[in-house]
Amino acid sequence: MLNFQYYAPTKVVFGKGTEGRVGELVKKEGCKKVLVHYGGQSAKKSGLLDRVFDSLKEAGIDYVSLGGVVPNPRLSKVYEGIELCRKEGVDFLLAVGGGSVIDSCKAIGYGLANECDVWDMYTGKEKAKGCAPVGVVLTIAAAGSEMSDSSVITNEDGWYKKALNTNYGRCRFAVMNPELTYTLPEYQTESGCTDIMMHTMERYFVAEDTMEITDGIAESLMRTVMKNAKILLDDPKNYNARAEIMWSGTLSHNDLTGCGTNGGDWATHLIEHELGGLFDVAHGAGLAAVWGSWARYVLDEKPERFASFAVNVMGVEDQGDAKKTALLGIEALEDFYRSIHMPTSIKELGISPTEEQIKEMAQKATVGGSYSLGMFKKLHAEDIEKIYRMAL
Amino acid sequence: MLNFQYYAPTKVVFGKGTEGRVGELVKKEGCKKVLVHYGGQSAKKSGLLDRVFDSLKEAGIDYVSLGGVVPNPRLSKVYEGIELCRKEGVDFLLAVGGGSVIDSCKAIGYGLANECDVWDMYTGKEKAKGCAPVGVVLTIAAAGSEMSDSSVITNEDGWYKKALNTNYGRCRFAVMNPELTYTLPEYQTESGCTDIMMHTMERYFVAEDTMEITDGIAESLMRTVMKNAKILLDDPKNYNARAEIMWSGTLSHNDLTGCGTNGGDWATHLIEHELGGLFDVAHGAGLAAVWGSWARYVLDEKPERFASFAVNVMGVEDQGDAKKTALLGIEALEDFYRSIHMPTSIKELGISPTEEQIKEMAQKATVGGSYSLGMFKKLHAEDIEKIYRMAL
Repeated sequence: MLNFQYYAPTKVVFGKGTEGRVGELVKKEGCKKVLVHYGGQSAKKSGLLDRVFDSLKEAGIDYVSLGGVVPNPRLSKVYEGIELCRKEGVDFLLAVGGGSVIDSCKAIGYGLANECDVWDMYTGKEKAKGCAPVGVVLTIAAAGSEMSDSSVITNEDGWYKKALNTNYGRCRFAVMNPELTYTLPEYQTESGCTDIMMHTMERYFVAEDTMEITDGIAESLMRTVMKNAKILLDDPKNYNARAEIMWSGTLSHNDLTGCGTNGGDWATHLIEHELGGLFDVAHGAGLAAVWGSWARYVLDEKPERFASFAVNVMGVEDQGDAKKTALLGIEALEDFYRSIHMPTSIKELGISPTEEQIKEMAQKATVGGSYSLGMFKKLHAEDIEKIYRMAL
Repeated sequence: MLNFQYYAPTKVVFGKGTEGRVGELVKKEGCKKVLVHYGGQSAKKSGLLDRVFDSLKEAGIDYVSLGGVVPNPRLSKVYEGIELCRKEGVDFLLAVGGGSVIDSCKAIGYGLANECDVWDMYTGKEKAKGCAPVGVVLTIAAAGSEMSDSSVITNEDGWYKKALNTNYGRCRFAVMNPELTYTLPEYQTESGCTDIMMHTMERYFVAEDTMEITDGIAESLMRTVMKNAKILLDDPKNYNARAEIMWSGTLSHNDLTGCGTNGGDWATHLIEHELGGLFDVAHGAGLAAVWGSWARYVLDEKPERFASFAVNVMGVEDQGDAKKTALLGIEALEDFYRSIHMPTSIKELGISPTEEQIKEMAQKATVGGSYSLGMFKKLHAEDIEKIYRMAL
């Protein structure tokens, strides 16, 4: 195992009716004017936005609002948010939504707290020196952004999708009421479950030796997610299942499942990021579509790790041969994805990247071939092209 | 499951050589003068204190030191620390030690940040409004105080042992190098493992419905602790085993294993606290001595919960009858305790409380009979007396 740092300071307020505590939570942060940032019309129609506004008013907190965040959140909306916050004297950013809204809020926060252009921090040209405080009312269990250090933004000028990970970007609080996820369409719910699985698997599939306690937590989390993802297919308003998924989503991405390792592999995420940047697919579904190909491509580096996954997570019987067991585990996970109506190929995403687009994505993912992806096996542009082709 | 709050903001810096980063960590907190608080001579002899001093000096941080903290840390030492800190203008408290030193540091922190007498906050007469910042270099894996909200102090005037739990008391950082625990005597190591088991079990044995993800994490943590506690019997310098135990100790008491429940039972802890207050026994060993009696006394409230523990943690075969399975699980845990040379009766602690002392402890635990202990089953003074007698 390796030395590690663990820092997850977000205050989680979990359960029924907790959105009514938003005003009190902002007040405790000592802030006075909030940007309520959200996505489409569902937060408005469901009455959630009004409940949030009421809670802020009750606590004597002023606010402005800005909606219209889309999946794979856009840099243009971030600029709009920064301008609005500067004009209105906003000192707290409240995301009412899922990962896209949270990530957009974090980006606005970086923009407010730094003098440089916000995109320069995402490309690595400038270093973030802070972030305005961000809180969340979570409405989609998936991204884990509510407790992670991560924010992913898409620049429409060239459709570049870039992540910025710093401790400044960790939310002050996360209000999580599983009931708010009842009305999500099945596809979005199950994409979310896939994303949660993948946040855990990215950290699980590492080449170095891991910690037993970390493995045990990760394996248990993945079993919980798979069981409850299936329950939600038939019973989308099952509170307990929604709660298990929501809390697992947070724990899958607050670094708990990576303690003792180098931080994880993340190649699958980066491979999917390019797909998402170019084609605007649902992130979780995109991950499901490419993971199996990634897994079969890298398996030989350490089949024993895939065999542990097969036995401890997928319930596969040990075949006495690591690679055989490993392959059964990969198939079992793909079967699970199919059972929750997730794609296991790019075709099933409804898209057909051309050979030129495959090359373009591999070039973007490796910044023109100058970087490799992944830790389990280092992948260069030509490896990534092969994985895209395997996944078609 | 119930609504819950989860807040564990301590920055963990885990691994080999990490004590060399103490100066940098204090500096990041913006503090200038440190009280280095410690226990006996071992931290001095081992060279650890000097390494901590060097790290502080390198970072340009001034310090004073105060040793002599004993197990079941005393109020008199807390007063001494408060006076020293006020005189010297200390603005950061660094515990170099285990739970006792951390708890003493937290108490000094409460004393510095509040106008009232520090003991009045532990008895509940006054409410804590803050705590001076505390950091830790952990040398004993057991108490979990490095990431918990808890501090327990013993008032020698009547030997009252009281806990103060507030979010103010959560450490800013915890430096955890498993190598620092290599030289602990076996009895102390295994008492620590018992304490870690019990912090998890106190949260696990609750009457209400729990979360699957929380149960899975708790069960996995307990299996990890038992496996590695046995390894350390023969191989006390096994880095991986020390690391598994150390990180499990932190996770067992930072509330992660209680998410979705009411916070846990805690009767066993309170029953042991009185033993510890009166007889000065090792906390973990005291817990091992009384747990089996508590378990058999409360079992009938919800045998199914004990049966889950038996099957999922102790590896007992399901007997098709919850109570039968439960009893086998309790025996299996007592067998485990014996295997790591822990007592399973009060006699084995080397003490024999008189009938008068048993009544006195039961009265103290319930504040003169006016409170009950525990959530799994509410225990009144007469129940507690019976448990002490069963455990003799």
